[in-house]
Amino acid sequence: MTYCVGLCLDQGLVMASDSRTNAGVDYISSYSKLHLFQPAPDRMFVLLAAGNLATTQEVLNRIRRDLDQAANPNQTDPGPAVTLASVNYLFEAANYIGQVNLAVQNEHGPALRQIGASVEATFILGGQIAGQPHGLFMIYPQGNSIAATPETPFLQIGESKYGKPILDQIVTPDLSLNDGARVCLVSLAGTARSNLTVGPPFEVAICPKDALAPSQRLRLEEQSAELETMTRDWMESLRHAFFGLPHFPWEQPSTASGPEAEGPHQMQS
Amino acid sequence: MTYCVGLCLDQGLVMASDSRTNAGVDYISSYSKLHLFQPAPDRMFVLLAAGNLATTQEVLNRIRRDLDQAANPNQTDPGPAVTLASVNYLFEAANYIGQVNLAVQNEHGPALRQIGASVEATFILGGQIAGQPHGLFMIYPQGNSIAATPETPFLQIGESKYGKPILDQIVTPDLSLNDGARVCLVSLAGTARSNLTVGPPFEVAICPKDALAPSQRLRLEEQSAELETMTRDWMESLRHAFFGLPHFPWEQPSTASGPEAEGPHQMQS
Repeated sequence: MTYCVGLCLDQGLVMASDSRTNAGVDYISSYSKLHLFQPAPDRMFVLLAAGNLATTQEVLNRIRRDLDQAANPNQTDPGPAVTLASVNYLFEAANYIGQVNLAVQNEHGPALRQIGASVEATFILGGQIAGQPHGLFMIYPQGNSIAATPETPFLQIGESKYGKPILDQIVTPDLSLNDGARVCLVSLAGTARSNLTVGPPFEVAICPKDALAPSQRLRLEEQSAELETMTRDWMESLRHAFFGLPHFPWEQPSTASGPEAEGPHQMQS
Repeated sequence: MTYCVGLCLDQGLVMASDSRTNAGVDYISSYSKLHLFQPAPDRMFVLLAAGNLATTQEVLNRIRRDLDQAANPNQTDPGPAVTLASVNYLFEAANYIGQVNLAVQNEHGPALRQIGASVEATFILGGQIAGQPHGLFMIYPQGNSIAATPETPFLQIGESKYGKPILDQIVTPDLSLNDGARVCLVSLAGTARSNLTVGPPFEVAICPKDALAPSQRLRLEEQSAELETMTRDWMESLRHAFFGLPHFPWEQPSTASGPEAEGPHQMQS
């Protein structure tokens, strides 16, 4: 089902996704779901995609075609009125992508509904236009969108429930970009462990504010040393934290407690 | 939606549940979902319930009525053939409860389907009959059931996704009962933080093998000192573990890292 997450932090954006795509359990493939657009020097957009793969790919192709046609107008066709190069505000970019999404779904929807399949796609858009703050939007299949705010500094699409608690516990607007990348990977890896439709490679893009470009692109392949190291480090850290929790009033003191305990104290009733 | 979890460990069973029930966002109540049955000296059963509250309550009432009627037979009515007191195997108890569940759902199902509501209920049954191992079953709305095994030592019902990663990472069959109770509470609290339909009080029953009774019953009330202490301790431990994770190769060494870092080492590519 995919899992993608975007963070809108004071320092910039972190965009992360998995790569697993499936048409049932007997047909599993790997497709990148993180797409970078730099259609002009004064702007950058990163799109994360979830849902029907044919829809998300066609949306991206239409976005690119619109940019091509706007850059090459001729007598008979002035090109599209709105593109990622022409919008003046980030929310206009979200609206534009939403309209393209709706158009693709409307074209193919009737045929898919006949077989009970879903044509829907959902996107996370992160980006910045020079002179404006960076921002993060979730674009619904219906074409409208919501923005991340300091109160809600992250957005998720796809198989989001497994990975949400760690984001709730760690992500605040003042989190560093590198810590943001780390928590996205932990959230992705935890989800992939619990749900077969989410899997590596995991991609992360770190986009500092005002840079109008990613400063780091990370791609953790399945069975890579980096991914195994990260998941093993997190597992060890998490277990260490858990077995150091305070004991219940009826338990024996620390010497009789679980592994890796660090002298837990009695809980106060 | 409820969230309940049962652990089947070498040392015995741990059964845990939340208490929030809702009929839409404007009607939220609190009902216990953990039910203890000790219908004879040689057996103990704990039932956790999720789904339609009217169904789960009627199932429990029918179970109790069957026990009453079997204990008080008369000329005209010999009482039910099967009760929780008469079954010889734990899986027979699961089948019996499944049949009662199915009967209640079949009776009320047609009326609920007319308004598009679900009559379904799902249960987790933990228990032991003297002379046999303790065990854990998940009873489906259709009346059949599956059992926990050493490979799958826990079962969840209700809003299970948020709380699954921590169980995947901590629970093994050799986990102590007290650690089992702790991980259930962490899993419940994390879920409640992320989903409004799950909430305290949280109930936990620790049932050592061969005891045929709970050795501890815990109930953490909303806004109680115990619950606030536990959630605060877990938040602090989790954040400490997270901010101690190794850094990416492009990051500065530990002195420039996030809070509470413990000299993280560089990741190996």
